[in-house]
Amino acid sequence: MELQNIYIKEVYPLKMIEVLRLSHRVSRDPRISTHVALTARAFGASKIYYSGQKDSNVEDTVNKITENFGGPFEIEYVKDALKLAEEKKKKGFFIVHLTMYGLQIQKEIKDIKKQKNILVLVGSEKVLPEFYKIADKNIAVTGQPHSEVMALGLFLDMYFDRKELDKNFNNGKMLIIPQNLGKNVKKLKE
Amino acid sequence: MELQNIYIKEVYPLKMIEVLRLSHRVSRDPRISTHVALTARAFGASKIYYSGQKDSNVEDTVNKITENFGGPFEIEYVKDALKLAEEKKKKGFFIVHLTMYGLQIQKEIKDIKKQKNILVLVGSEKVLPEFYKIADKNIAVTGQPHSEVMALGLFLDMYFDRKELDKNFNNGKMLIIPQNLGKNVKKLKE
Repeated sequence: MELQNIYIKEVYPLKMIEVLRLSHRVSRDPRISTHVALTARAFGASKIYYSGQKDSNVEDTVNKITENFGGPFEIEYVKDALKLAEEKKKKGFFIVHLTMYGLQIQKEIKDIKKQKNILVLVGSEKVLPEFYKIADKNIAVTGQPHSEVMALGLFLDMYFDRKELDKNFNNGKMLIIPQNLGKNVKKLKE
Repeated sequence: MELQNIYIKEVYPLKMIEVLRLSHRVSRDPRISTHVALTARAFGASKIYYSGQKDSNVEDTVNKITENFGGPFEIEYVKDALKLAEEKKKKGFFIVHLTMYGLQIQKEIKDIKKQKNILVLVGSEKVLPEFYKIADKNIAVTGQPHSEVMALGLFLDMYFDRKELDKNFNNGKMLIIPQNLGKNVKKLKE
């Protein structure tokens, strides 16, 4: 418990990780984009932006989970993803684009950890060259095709040195108490 | 390169991780199940079984990627998931069921690492109590709702001590050469 408080007080506010999910398509990506957003939240990012098509179902699902299980975490639609990346860069954010073609995360993570504010770009099927170019680093979580959900989650896990697994969330309505068999959900408020 | 060979020769054949994806639904899960399967492959599992509805699109996508990027990796449909789990258990497999209600992975992984053959159960929306019961351990990758893709991938990453990031695959047609900008794909054979 004490360790978790230290994490919240000392690690979280000093490091701000935001995510930008590119080119969401309502017809094809709703579940994947939801998983990307929930993974961002569960593994220590504070906000996700997404571009492409606005999708209130994804937003509602994510906001409902933040309401129930705690925050802080936000989701926001942006029309112009490149403009957002440019603005963040001006504000001092280091931009990491996750792509299987990039440099190996296991070799780059030490350098990236020195950065305090990071915007992580997570593509869908096809990513425009502009995003490769605006990135300070293009990073591969394995050079194998798998999942942007996993690429983002492992990036966060490596960035936060696995401390995010003990993260506490604030103002949630419920808390899951770990146990081997069955479900133990503690109600924190109505 | 030398390290990677050691990994292939000494770690991979000694530890066999297989995955069982429960209750796949063609209408709802095709992309998520594909991401689960590709994450299994990329992070060191040797095979994925799936139950629910048979889906040749998912199988074709996964097999195509194994053909292009190397294996060994297999995907197989099973009609009766519980029967498969029982059979694996008889053969000495340790069964881990990933669920947000389970014990914390950060506390349990040391014990689980002692196991050589593991079957990892990955649910979709609703998992029957039978699977909780047949599992030797029900394990939570955070007690937060996020993604079965991420839960599986982080489990594998912790089990393999991050060595899977340097894994070599065999008999692929292509290999991605890491670089910061652009795409460098080496053709290994036609």
